Amino acid sequence: MDAKALQKIGYGVYIVTSTSGTKINGQIANTVFQVCSEPAIISIAINKKNLTHEYISKSGVFCVSILAQDTPLSFIGQFGFKSGRDINKFEGVNYRQGTTGSPIVLDNSIAFIEAKVINTVDVVTHTLFIGEVVDAGTLKDGIPMSYDYYHQVKRGTTPKSAPSYVDVKKEEAQVKMDKYQCDICGYIYDPAKGDPESNIPPGTPFEKLPDGWMCPVCGASKSDFKKIEG
Amino acid sequence: MDAKALQKIGYGVYIVTSTSGTKINGQIANTVFQVCSEPAIISIAINKKNLTHEYISKSGVFCVSILAQDTPLSFIGQFGFKSGRDINKFEGVNYRQGTTGSPIVLDNSIAFIEAKVINTVDVVTHTLFIGEVVDAGTLKDGIPMSYDYYHQVKRGTTPKSAPSYVDVKKEEAQVKMDKYQCDICGYIYDPAKGDPESNIPPGTPFEKLPDGWMCPVCGASKSDFKKIEG
Repeated sequence: MDAKALQKIGYGVYIVTSTSGTKINGQIANTVFQVCSEPAIISIAINKKNLTHEYISKSGVFCVSILAQDTPLSFIGQFGFKSGRDINKFEGVNYRQGTTGSPIVLDNSIAFIEAKVINTVDVVTHTLFIGEVVDAGTLKDGIPMSYDYYHQVKRGTTPKSAPSYVDVKKEEAQVKMDKYQCDICGYIYDPAKGDPESNIPPGTPFEKLPDGWMCPVCGASKSDFKKIEG
Repeated sequence: MDAKALQKIGYGVYIVTSTSGTKINGQIANTVFQVCSEPAIISIAINKKNLTHEYISKSGVFCVSILAQDTPLSFIGQFGFKSGRDINKFEGVNYRQGTTGSPIVLDNSIAFIEAKVINTVDVVTHTLFIGEVVDAGTLKDGIPMSYDYYHQVKRGTTPKSAPSYVDVKKEEAQVKMDKYQCDICGYIYDPAKGDPESNIPPGTPFEKLPDGWMCPVCGASKSDFKKIEG
């Protein structure tokens, strides 16, 4: 089986949120899709280990905020590579609570969809939550970010907890170049590509990066990077 | 509820196939996604009325062929707007049967994924088939087509039987222009955009289209088009 075939499936990039009592949480997800038109029903796949999974299971509600193509990597990193058990992910983030009580992310989102869970399916490491849409709205004009754009243009990474995770280290190790990988989130600094978000031009070796340079995805420092052995 | 929000969800464009005894069939689908990494599990949403639904239900297997961005609209139309109950969709199409017996489409596909159904979920008009991946492979280099590209660039349409269907007539009627809509598949000819696949330049009124011009999606003739009243 060639796992690369699975990487050709198309997705968007979303923040899935939920609530539990007075608490709120959210996480990055790519697996959101509509499964019925009348009535409108959507389905999402969430890792069982995630706090958002716990909240959706308890409250039976969730909200999907659809991220714009120009969302900064650092914003995705805050929701995607950190746990709501350790930090308040909504610190400094504009949001409002929708009809389900789940937070609608207002920064970098172009639209939202709120749903009530009507069915769940166990899929080993993940749960499929199937939800009837109870509210939806557009927030601003803009192009939704595709998962492919996130990977190819933004050069974002996929955490091990995602349904579509592939071992990047193994893949990249086949290419003999002085790339460096972030120990925290798996982001790979490729000197041939630089880091456009931090104005680092292509052709800049890792060693020449400024001392204050940080991982564009999770904010880790240079010392958290390890050279990928070819 | 603003249904436009649901249209911001990202998808790819696929041919989902299955088999029943010696028979084979396939259909266009946009709702394919991976829901678990280890083991690899994918999920698809298929309309209960479709022949492919019948075949998957009986055989418990299906195959997803991932279409390339440059797939002609007419190829999508053959699999998407016609029923395998009326025509042999595979006539003139290159394919081979995979380990599950489901046809792997070789024309215009860049990769395939074969799966065995491990669970099904009723979602009103559709069934979610959840399948463990038993084989997958890449067929050729190329960019997968996104559903957004299909709509925005190729100007393809969505049939009423799709999970993400929105009434285009209602939407387009708000724009006061001499657009014409295909009665068969819902494709809208917009003179401002022309029909790039048939070398019809933007600015060509419907009335000036050659007599032999056919709907780029389903092959219907000019007489099958009706003016959209503003």
